[in-house]
Amino acid sequence: MDAVDVIRTKRDTGVLDDAQIDWVIDAYIKGVVAEEQMAALLMAIFFKGMTARELARWTTAMIASGVRMNFDDLPRPTTDKHSTGGVGDKITLPLTPSVAACGAAVPQLSGRGLGHTGGTLDKLESIKGWRASITTDEMFAQLRDVGAVVCAAGDGLAPADRLLYALRDVTATVESIPLIASSIMSKKIAEGTGALVLDVKVGSGAFMKDVETARELASTMVELGAAHGVKTVALLTDMNTPLGRTAGNALEVAEAVEVLAGGGPSDVVEITVTLAREMLQACGRGGGKDPADALRDGSAMDVWRRMIRAQGGDPDAALPSAAHVHVVTSPTSGRLVRLDALSVGVAAWRLGAGRARKEDSVSFGAGIEMHAKPGDLVRAGEPLLSLHSDDETRFAAAIEALDGGYLVEPSEADFRTAPQVIERVGA
Amino acid sequence: MDAVDVIRTKRDTGVLDDAQIDWVIDAYIKGVVAEEQMAALLMAIFFKGMTARELARWTTAMIASGVRMNFDDLPRPTTDKHSTGGVGDKITLPLTPSVAACGAAVPQLSGRGLGHTGGTLDKLESIKGWRASITTDEMFAQLRDVGAVVCAAGDGLAPADRLLYALRDVTATVESIPLIASSIMSKKIAEGTGALVLDVKVGSGAFMKDVETARELASTMVELGAAHGVKTVALLTDMNTPLGRTAGNALEVAEAVEVLAGGGPSDVVEITVTLAREMLQACGRGGGKDPADALRDGSAMDVWRRMIRAQGGDPDAALPSAAHVHVVTSPTSGRLVRLDALSVGVAAWRLGAGRARKEDSVSFGAGIEMHAKPGDLVRAGEPLLSLHSDDETRFAAAIEALDGGYLVEPSEADFRTAPQVIERVGA
Repeated sequence: MDAVDVIRTKRDTGVLDDAQIDWVIDAYIKGVVAEEQMAALLMAIFFKGMTARELARWTTAMIASGVRMNFDDLPRPTTDKHSTGGVGDKITLPLTPSVAACGAAVPQLSGRGLGHTGGTLDKLESIKGWRASITTDEMFAQLRDVGAVVCAAGDGLAPADRLLYALRDVTATVESIPLIASSIMSKKIAEGTGALVLDVKVGSGAFMKDVETARELASTMVELGAAHGVKTVALLTDMNTPLGRTAGNALEVAEAVEVLAGGGPSDVVEITVTLAREMLQACGRGGGKDPADALRDGSAMDVWRRMIRAQGGDPDAALPSAAHVHVVTSPTSGRLVRLDALSVGVAAWRLGAGRARKEDSVSFGAGIEMHAKPGDLVRAGEPLLSLHSDDETRFAAAIEALDGGYLVEPSEADFRTAPQVIERVGA
Repeated sequence: MDAVDVIRTKRDTGVLDDAQIDWVIDAYIKGVVAEEQMAALLMAIFFKGMTARELARWTTAMIASGVRMNFDDLPRPTTDKHSTGGVGDKITLPLTPSVAACGAAVPQLSGRGLGHTGGTLDKLESIKGWRASITTDEMFAQLRDVGAVVCAAGDGLAPADRLLYALRDVTATVESIPLIASSIMSKKIAEGTGALVLDVKVGSGAFMKDVETARELASTMVELGAAHGVKTVALLTDMNTPLGRTAGNALEVAEAVEVLAGGGPSDVVEITVTLAREMLQACGRGGGKDPADALRDGSAMDVWRRMIRAQGGDPDAALPSAAHVHVVTSPTSGRLVRLDALSVGVAAWRLGAGRARKEDSVSFGAGIEMHAKPGDLVRAGEPLLSLHSDDETRFAAAIEALDGGYLVEPSEADFRTAPQVIERVGA
C-alpha cells in the first residue's frame, strides 16, 4: 500500500476501500504516512466527502488506534451526551447527576474550551479540589458507587483523533461533516457508552450556523453510532442566544447548582430534562423515574455532591469570583429582542473565561451574567449584563465584542421566543 | 497573514489575492508555512483551480523566490524550448545547435529523467567528459561564443519549485494544470530566455494522455509566458509512438548526431526543424537562415561540437554501449501498426536507461533500438527491437513491459500514419 495511491484514489474516484482506510490510519499513527500526505488526504475528503460505509470504517480504524472501554459489567446501563459546543452550555453539570439519579450510569469523558465556547472540565475545575484526571479503575469504581463521572479522556482513547484533530486545525480541514462526525464519534464510542444523545447546537454561537448542515452532521453521527452498536439520538438545539443567564466557568457552576436545587433558568431546565429523558430512553430506562422529579426532590443534587467529592472536589466551597465587575445597562426602555450568543461568547472569552490556544489557562471567575434574556422588558439605565474579569483592562475589548450583540426595541414590537429544541434526529 | 486563512480562502472562494499568494510562497520557503499546510493548499488548488491572474502572480512569486537571469547584453536574441517529456525525445540535442546556427542564442537549463521518460542531461552525460554543471559566468561566455548551452539549472532558479515539486510528488497533487504550468514556466522564465516554444507531448508515453488536457496546459503556459514578457508558443505533438528509432541515453545521442549529420529518422528531423523554426520566429529571427539548411550544410553539427567541447565533452569519443543485447523478432509477417510509447519507455527504464528515484544512477548504454516503426512492413523472424542492457537479468522484465506494446497485422490492413504535430497554440 502506498500513501500517494490512497490520496489519488480519494481525489479521483472519491471512495476508499476497507484495506486502504485501515492502512492509512494505522500508517499515519506510526509515522509511515507523513503529515503532509494526511493533510492532502483530508483536503481531498473535504471536497469528495465519504460514503456511510467508508465513514464507518474510518471511524472503526480511529477507535482501533487505541483502547475501547467496556462497562458491560456495571449493574446499570450506560448512557452519555455530547454537545457540539455553545455559549453558556453548562448542561452536562445538572444533566449527568439527574440521569444517574434516575438509574442509568453516565461515563462522560469531556474536554476543555477553545475560543468562544466553554469546556466542561474548565467549569468543574473552578470547584476547589476537583480533579479532571482519574484512572480507569477510579472511573469504574465511581460509576459503580455514584453512577456518574465527568473526567478528562485518557491518552489511550482514539489517539488517531488527537493527531488528526491537531492536523485539521492547521490545514483548514476542520469543517468537513465526515471528519467532524468521526472525530466526535470515535471518542464517544471508544469511551464505551451503550447509548448516546447528541446535542447539536445550531446558530451564531455554535459551530454549525444553519439547520441543514446541523441536520446532516446529526444524521451522519446517528448512523455512525448505530453502525458501532451504540444507540444514538440527536437533538438540534438553538444556539443563537446563550443558554441560561451565565457564561463563564464558576458563574456557570453556580447556575448549574441552582438548577440542581430545583430552580435556575427555564431554558437550562428544559434542555437538561429533555436530554436526560432521551438519555434514559436510549439506554432502556425510559419508563422509570423522571429527571424533572430528580431535580425537584434533591436526588440529582445528592448525586452531584457525591460525584464532585469522589473526584476530590468540595461542593460546599465558595466558588472563585473575579476581582472586577463592569455593568452594561440598557440604552433605552423596551423589550430585549436579541442577545447574540457569539457576541456574548467572544466577550466572555476576552474577559478571561476562555483560551485562544490549548496551552493557555482560563480565569475561573471571569465571564458574563445576563440580567435579561430576549423577550424580557427592560428600562433605560437598568443592568443588562455584568461583565466579570480579574483584569480591568479587558473590559474595553469585551464591550467591543458586545457591540451590536444586543438589541432593545419598543415593547410593543412583535417578538416570538425561538424554541429550544429545533428537531430530533433518530435512527 | 495566516496559513489557515489562506487555505480556507482557496477552499471556499477559490481565489487568492496578490498579497495572500506573495505571502504564502515566501512563508513556505522560509518554513513559516508548514509542509502539511502547503499540501492542503495544493490539494485545494487541485480541486478549485486558479484564475489566470492568480496563476500569473503565483508564478511571479515562485520566480521571486530565486534569481532571474538576464541575457539582454548578448548580441543575439535568446530563445528556448521545453518538452513535457516523452519516449525517445532527444530533440533538444539536434535542435539547440540548429537554432544557434541560424543566429539565435539558446540558454537551455535542462533536467534529468524520472520513470519512463528520459532526461536531456542524462543523455549528454553519456558523452565522455561532458559536464552538466557550469557556473553562470561560463554559461554567459558559452552563449556569447557558441550561441548554445544545455546545462543543469542551478539551485538559485525558482527554489520554490524544487520544494513544491517534491511535495506534490508525495501528496498526489502533481496532476493539476495550474501547478504543472507554474512549475514549468517559473523555471523557464527565471532562466531568462526572451522567447519560448513548448513541445506539449500527447499520448500513451506522455504525461498528458488526451488532446483536451494538453491543449489546456498549452494555452495556460502560453498565457503565463505572455504575462511575464516571454513570447511563448506551444505545439501539441504525438507521443503514442516513441520519437525516432532509439530510446536510451547513448543510443539517442548517436541518433541525434545522425540528424546533425543531415540524416536520421524523418520524425526526429521533422520535429527538430518545426520547433527550430518556431523558436527563431518567436525571437524575431524568422526570416533568416532555415534550420533545415543548418542540418544539411554542417553548420548545426559545427555548433554541436563546439557546444559539447565547451562543457568538457569529447564529441569524437566512442559512446558507451551495453554489455548485452537481446533481439525481439516479429512474430508474423505483415505491417507493424502499433509500437506503444509507454511500453517502450518502461522497457528502456527497466533495462537501466531510466531511474525510479532521483538518487538512482542510469546506465548510459542501456535502451532500445527500434528496427521498425508503425507503417513499416516486417517479416516473421525479422528483428523488431534490440534491447540493450548491462545486466542480462533485466531482459525478462523489459520483455514483459513490451507485451502487447507492438502489433503486426496483415500488410493489406488499413493503416494511416498519425501526424507529428497535432496543433499549434499561439498567443
